[in-house]
Amino acid sequence: MKLSFSNTIELRVRYSETDQMGYCYYGNYAQYFEVGRVEALRSVGMSYKELENSGVMLPVSEFQVKYFAPAYYDDLLRIETQITELRGSRLLFDYRITNESDKEICVASTTLVFVKKENMRPVAPPVEFIDRIQPYLCHD
Amino acid sequence: MKLSFSNTIELRVRYSETDQMGYCYYGNYAQYFEVGRVEALRSVGMSYKELENSGVMLPVSEFQVKYFAPAYYDDLLRIETQITELRGSRLLFDYRITNESDKEICVASTTLVFVKKENMRPVAPPVEFIDRIQPYLCHD
Amino acid sequence: MKLSFSNTIELRVRYSETDQMGYCYYGNYAQYFEVGRVEALRSVGMSYKELENSGVMLPVSEFQVKYFAPAYYDDLLRIETQITELRGSRLLFDYRITNESDKEICVASTTLVFVKKENMRPVAPPVEFIDRIQPYLCHD
Amino acid sequence: MKLSFSNTIELRVRYSETDQMGYCYYGNYAQYFEVGRVEALRSVGMSYKELENSGVMLPVSEFQVKYFAPAYYDDLLRIETQITELRGSRLLFDYRITNESDKEICVASTTLVFVKKENMRPVAPPVEFIDRIQPYLCHD
Repeated sequence: MKLSFSNTIELRVRYSETDQMGYCYYGNYAQYFEVGRVEALRSVGMSYKELENSGVMLPVSEFQVKYFAPAYYDDLLRIETQITELRGSRLLFDYRITNESDKEICVASTTLVFVKKENMRPVAPPVEFIDRIQPYLCHD
Repeated sequence: MKLSFSNTIELRVRYSETDQMGYCYYGNYAQYFEVGRVEALRSVGMSYKELENSGVMLPVSEFQVKYFAPAYYDDLLRIETQITELRGSRLLFDYRITNESDKEICVASTTLVFVKKENMRPVAPPVEFIDRIQPYLCHD
Repeated sequence: MKLSFSNTIELRVRYSETDQMGYCYYGNYAQYFEVGRVEALRSVGMSYKELENSGVMLPVSEFQVKYFAPAYYDDLLRIETQITELRGSRLLFDYRITNESDKEICVASTTLVFVKKENMRPVAPPVEFIDRIQPYLCHD
Repeated sequence: MKLSFSNTIELRVRYSETDQMGYCYYGNYAQYFEVGRVEALRSVGMSYKELENSGVMLPVSEFQVKYFAPAYYDDLLRIETQITELRGSRLLFDYRITNESDKEICVASTTLVFVKKENMRPVAPPVEFIDRIQPYLCHD
């Protein structure tokens, strides 16, 4: 089912996250998307920490990113996270990062899978999550 | 032009690279691909360090990865890197990571762009690189 | 000269920063101290970014940390940073991290050195910094 | 009891590990020491992975480092790790990193504690470890 939930957070590029090119290292965005994702889930009313404690995990199975412009040290980035679809056990997210001048830094998408902690097998999303996400269903 | 150059390295998953799921964190593979890429270039005869010293850099503009199975702490991973195409200023790489039991962990691809250090504008690849890569041209 | 300036920030442990022990990896605290340090300098009125742009850098020359209790994923940590002394070109900081239950996670200290970007040689701190830090001199 | 066991490994600085100063970021050395430590234990005949699987972990309780000179991208570093003392549940290590020109980059020391996985309480080191470390006892 298609979903339309969006959440925006801000995050500052750390010195440790730069590389000698003077850019935020391309591999560090995966962390930023994770922070965006976790805060999006929290604002829907689902704590990822509690999800894991209940025996369900949400590992990433696919990840794509396009970089348009570099982010620099101390930049205050805006990370817009969208939950776009629930397809069986799979949950899809889109991301867009812009800087303080509204310049587009990168866009990305990830696919995550609800799995049982014990055996790492795909499972249906928790009922509470389905309930919480219901208001954001796309009716078209 | 299509290219067919391949290089394989081994690399051990560090404790710092695991997460509380007990997996190698999904964002850390970007570093592994970078190590694979740098060693592939070195084995073609191009030191990335010298490239940067000569005023040319090679940032990543696109990155896709599919995860099939987790890698764990202390796993000795095989990273196979292929240089697949030179398209103007853009250099394309494919990657495949397997573990000691030959299980496929993930596949990925990246697009990098030769840019001038001074202004970050795309430039033609250095002549030395073209020369070095010549033997690996696909004739079909 | 002994100084007494203190600044506190909050920071949430990212999933990427945990390890398979389920702890925040011991090496990631260096990043947290850096964030604490940069925000302490900002609240004194000195942007570390501008300092670098003016040709002066502040690398770390010594670093000690004692860990008392683990921090976990999603913990909201309080990082208290103190600027304790300016000794020639050297600037000393102390840190203390506590969690939401006021449990002490770790304490640390670092020594940083003002150096000239061109040659990485120690230099006197910028006059603006001396001016800004003046009100926090310890008179004893 | 004082110990005298030493092991040396080599490790190349990754691009991701540099910062915009052009240095290997000060916080990344913790990872290098961990790699040195794990390989030192392996060469004594103790796999850290198996230790954890047997229900015992070895978190770091103290960490000190002094930086003498920067390490740069692509530097091939030598990491010399010494196991210096077993004091109850605590195991002490010293480290020394040099570059290809034999320049000293940094020295460090860490204290680790054998703890039971279930309750994170200190425990005596496994008998197998005591046996393995026996030949390296200092008799003075």
